[in-house]
Amino acid sequence: MPMEEMELKPGRHMLYMEWYSRDPGGLFMKVNRWLYSAQSPYQRIDIFESPFYGRVFALDGITMTTEIDEFMYHEMLVHVPMFMHPNPKKVLVIGGGDGGSVREVLKHPSVEKVVMCEIDEMVVRAAMEYLPYTASKLNDPRVELVFEDGAKFVRQFKNEFDVIIIDSTDPTAGQGGHLFTLEFYKACNEALKEDGILCAQTEGMTYDWEWGSTAYKRIKANFPLVKMYLGFMPTYPGGIWSYTYASKAGLDPIKDYNPEKVRNFKEPLRYYNEEIHKAAFALPNFVKKYIGEE
Amino acid sequence: MPMEEMELKPGRHMLYMEWYSRDPGGLFMKVNRWLYSAQSPYQRIDIFESPFYGRVFALDGITMTTEIDEFMYHEMLVHVPMFMHPNPKKVLVIGGGDGGSVREVLKHPSVEKVVMCEIDEMVVRAAMEYLPYTASKLNDPRVELVFEDGAKFVRQFKNEFDVIIIDSTDPTAGQGGHLFTLEFYKACNEALKEDGILCAQTEGMTYDWEWGSTAYKRIKANFPLVKMYLGFMPTYPGGIWSYTYASKAGLDPIKDYNPEKVRNFKEPLRYYNEEIHKAAFALPNFVKKYIGEE
Repeated sequence: MPMEEMELKPGRHMLYMEWYSRDPGGLFMKVNRWLYSAQSPYQRIDIFESPFYGRVFALDGITMTTEIDEFMYHEMLVHVPMFMHPNPKKVLVIGGGDGGSVREVLKHPSVEKVVMCEIDEMVVRAAMEYLPYTASKLNDPRVELVFEDGAKFVRQFKNEFDVIIIDSTDPTAGQGGHLFTLEFYKACNEALKEDGILCAQTEGMTYDWEWGSTAYKRIKANFPLVKMYLGFMPTYPGGIWSYTYASKAGLDPIKDYNPEKVRNFKEPLRYYNEEIHKAAFALPNFVKKYIGEE
Repeated sequence: MPMEEMELKPGRHMLYMEWYSRDPGGLFMKVNRWLYSAQSPYQRIDIFESPFYGRVFALDGITMTTEIDEFMYHEMLVHVPMFMHPNPKKVLVIGGGDGGSVREVLKHPSVEKVVMCEIDEMVVRAAMEYLPYTASKLNDPRVELVFEDGAKFVRQFKNEFDVIIIDSTDPTAGQGGHLFTLEFYKACNEALKEDGILCAQTEGMTYDWEWGSTAYKRIKANFPLVKMYLGFMPTYPGGIWSYTYASKAGLDPIKDYNPEKVRNFKEPLRYYNEEIHKAAFALPNFVKKYIGEE
């Protein structure tokens, strides 16, 4: 296991983050200052400062966000589904305790309510204290915070949400595993309205790509139109990050995309734009092979 | 400097590759077996075996190729310009001592001759011995190997090549710096035929992105049509790798692209395809800003 070989050591000059479950390898970075370390009922939480990466937030020794690149992940996870939905009013974010996904969701003026269901309240409290920009919208009156198991929570809803965003940890880290099951994706489908859209982070395509491939196939088994897309993410393992888009009404992310909405968008974005939206769905041959779409 | 803080240490279980010139940070990997280490007149050369990455080739402690991902870099650097040229017969590769670019160039059946000008003969000899797949085409009869400074070599040609590929090391590593000057790009322009195409690796867009931005602007000062594109490259710093395409005749890589050539291509490719060609030119907002193309 990663943590046995490469445990986070507060106070050490250098910190090593494992990238791969089978052989040691990963990212190392300099630590200037340790801000927070705690063991929650679910996982180990660490937040520290690194000169280049800024504030780094890790769960069980795996990078969740760094200040230099969290925008890449959160913009790609959120804006692709949000711009595809004609009028997203009610959004469910599952996981995403750092608040970055909620921050991006609330850039869309149609949104009336965001429910964020995060199992680990300690993560949310730590983010609100130590990651003020990432967590900046968690106090917004449109946000409802729920501290529960997302897989159980979603089951109580039928035909409720316009968009569901699955911002989970890795399937082997902390509590992420149960957010990768067939049953969970089925429950998400049922919790969506008829024209609802789901988007999930589905892991990297360099190391342990089998996780992402499995997640993609399971989502595909539950929705009529499912497509994987990719984005750069420097501090995540291998930097090739995958997301899976699913539409209950069969809205195609290329053919049915309305770039007018993007052109009229008032909020500044640092990664996502009209060309990136379309380009992200182009998959390299090896990724098509991994997910069985050759 | 990277090498002072993180020198390669043959025989150590773990190896740390610096990713950033200002603060320590980068990739670490397990080393199973050390295959080759030498100091050439130009740089330190290392080749070792890692369980996940396969054979890893490094110059001055910076990863040049690993067996798991060199195809991503070489396919993107080579096939974008090669598919844009209507009939590439004579190709110049500057740098690229490992042979990966030549291997990809020779997949195009129109090619009659590839000149590879690599300053460091020891790199080429080491690659031919220890990186047999990457260097597999360096003995092809269509290949002419020249061991010279590429910046000087290219100056002797006018109107000679269909395609020039600049497969340099980083501007601060080894001998790469002089392959990033205005004068060098001007000489490349003059060495190309009237419909010639140039493509250069122009560094990463995460760390030290100023290098890539400078290279892009200098190429742009020398060609009528210049566009940057991106590809994933897990073991290069930050994984967001940039390439700059330039056409002497103003051929646009999107509007003037002929996908028929790709559809009829007989050689298997693991990364590049028709959709990737077009998608690679979509730049995230922050990259547009870096290169002054907002």
